[in-house]
Amino acid sequence: MSVPGPVLVVGCGLLGTSLGLALRAQGVEVWLDDLNPEHLRTATGLGAGVPVVDRSAARLVVVAVPPDHVGSAVVAALHQTAGVVTDVGSVKSAPLAEVAASVGAEDLRRYVGSHPMAGSERSGPLAAAATLFDGRPWAVTPHATSSPEAVDAVTALVRACGAQAFTFSPEAHDEAVARTSHVPHVMAALVAGRLAQAPADHLALSGQGVRDVTRIAAGDPALWEQILTANRGAVAGLLREVREDLDRMLEALDSDARPAVSSLLSSGVAGTAAIPGKHGGPAVATASVYVALPDHPGELGRLFGDVGRSEVNIEDVRIDHDPGRPVGQVELVVAESAAAVLVHSLGERGWSVHG
Amino acid sequence: MSVPGPVLVVGCGLLGTSLGLALRAQGVEVWLDDLNPEHLRTATGLGAGVPVVDRSAARLVVVAVPPDHVGSAVVAALHQTAGVVTDVGSVKSAPLAEVAASVGAEDLRRYVGSHPMAGSERSGPLAAAATLFDGRPWAVTPHATSSPEAVDAVTALVRACGAQAFTFSPEAHDEAVARTSHVPHVMAALVAGRLAQAPADHLALSGQGVRDVTRIAAGDPALWEQILTANRGAVAGLLREVREDLDRMLEALDSDARPAVSSLLSSGVAGTAAIPGKHGGPAVATASVYVALPDHPGELGRLFGDVGRSEVNIEDVRIDHDPGRPVGQVELVVAESAAAVLVHSLGERGWSVHG
Repeated sequence: MSVPGPVLVVGCGLLGTSLGLALRAQGVEVWLDDLNPEHLRTATGLGAGVPVVDRSAARLVVVAVPPDHVGSAVVAALHQTAGVVTDVGSVKSAPLAEVAASVGAEDLRRYVGSHPMAGSERSGPLAAAATLFDGRPWAVTPHATSSPEAVDAVTALVRACGAQAFTFSPEAHDEAVARTSHVPHVMAALVAGRLAQAPADHLALSGQGVRDVTRIAAGDPALWEQILTANRGAVAGLLREVREDLDRMLEALDSDARPAVSSLLSSGVAGTAAIPGKHGGPAVATASVYVALPDHPGELGRLFGDVGRSEVNIEDVRIDHDPGRPVGQVELVVAESAAAVLVHSLGERGWSVHG
Repeated sequence: MSVPGPVLVVGCGLLGTSLGLALRAQGVEVWLDDLNPEHLRTATGLGAGVPVVDRSAARLVVVAVPPDHVGSAVVAALHQTAGVVTDVGSVKSAPLAEVAASVGAEDLRRYVGSHPMAGSERSGPLAAAATLFDGRPWAVTPHATSSPEAVDAVTALVRACGAQAFTFSPEAHDEAVARTSHVPHVMAALVAGRLAQAPADHLALSGQGVRDVTRIAAGDPALWEQILTANRGAVAGLLREVREDLDRMLEALDSDARPAVSSLLSSGVAGTAAIPGKHGGPAVATASVYVALPDHPGELGRLFGDVGRSEVNIEDVRIDHDPGRPVGQVELVVAESAAAVLVHSLGERGWSVHG
């Protein structure tokens, strides 16, 4: 089915404005609303829709407000319209409980939560883009009494935004994101917390590993405080498992019990292999090719031009940060079977390269 | 000073062979040794040096063997030669204690430990490269009685390999790498361990964040078991601090105590800002520019060609993994002041781009 319009988007932040842009690109009528008149003005100026005309005539309402306000905004929308209501918040069970406690059974049928895996590190309408959801997973989380029509409308919304729908119960969703997003965020913050207390000269030895581990810990604490507390049951459950493993690791280190250290590390290796590969298929065996790169604007372009001519597809790229000289190292991650071809091809074109 | 040759490299794995290649490129005479004749053959075949001629005539010995064997190999080298001896192991205090217990005070003066921040994720001579150390930090760790001549020789070695020397005491080094490398590794493994136990469909919601946090957890458990146990004092000390923070986080989540959650997250933000920026300067404020990319071999080359023409220097690149369609998203990290220029320039060249 196609998206039932007009669509009312409540909240013109990054997600709401991007949604409006994506729907407008598909020709869907979009109405916008925001408590902040400046956000509303920016979003309409960007072409994400027009200020809401007749709230009660919206056939689909998308609530895109901060986590703390999702429940009350969904309740308000169910009271104001007869259409389908969804939200794009990071946590699903807590707002559902709030909604279920405040509306009748018939109204509750029109609500289906959802959660696009996109955009959590930036904010505001100016960061919005019609392509924000392109190819991203987007969880659709019907509750026990959601109507099939409501589920269809939300699934159509996901598709119209170019995303891929994955259906979960609200509880399973919250477990899943606790594991794949919220607990990793807490752990990154705890590692980064140790850096904040370090003697400054010790950090000169920071490599790419610690940068990768801590990158997401730079996210907005005010937003993450809301997310973590809204999902505190699932997050705390997994963090208790982490603490058990941490105690095992401490005991193993204290007693120099190497098999126990190794076993914890091996289960980490298994976990990295369990993450699905690009394009959602099974994880593909990859290999890295390293290229020394003079640090000028043009060199990266020349390198990727030569990579393109080698006809090898690049799964991932990392530029290594070097601490004292104008030479970088670029790591090109490719399918294992393609690494030798790429090394040969780049070597022939004069690059200092190794596999 | 220049590197005193001939240099004897003991151990022709990734580091030893790369060292040989880097020194040969500077015209230094290099002798190689390895218990594994195939590694020795490969390393000499690659041009990293020649099989050791006269062990006692080496003026500098570099021990590049697995962590468990560093101490005994350094002792053997001090007994066999009158030259300076160093090693390239990841941990410094434990091997030093082993050496100090086994050689006389005069011999001990000829030993200075060191540790290049390079190459821990691959292994074997075939992965070696003369450029492996280019621009990398390399810790030089004299002990209380190391002779100035020995420190100079090791510092010359570091420079000859294109790396940047940072001087630490062995104890400070071990504290520093516990914080910037060993504890991040353990934490990545604990997060990844949770993924190993996940219902498979939950992992469909994995985004770039969890991939970054867990990437290093794929490292060889046998190697990391040696590293962690050799540095177990410093690692366990920091992991106890992590456990205290973890307990605080659990208590805060259990009691819905938001200021405590927020305070732990804020100290993580401070930690990410403390990591030195590229080229060792203070951390530079960066911004990300996102480009939608058709997933063909040639497109990345075309993109970076256009990036080059925009005259903006790229600090980092990430390719986002999308789960179901042949479109990717490339994140270009640039200095904050250059982001708008890049968005404009790529937009003009027809790319779907947002800042």
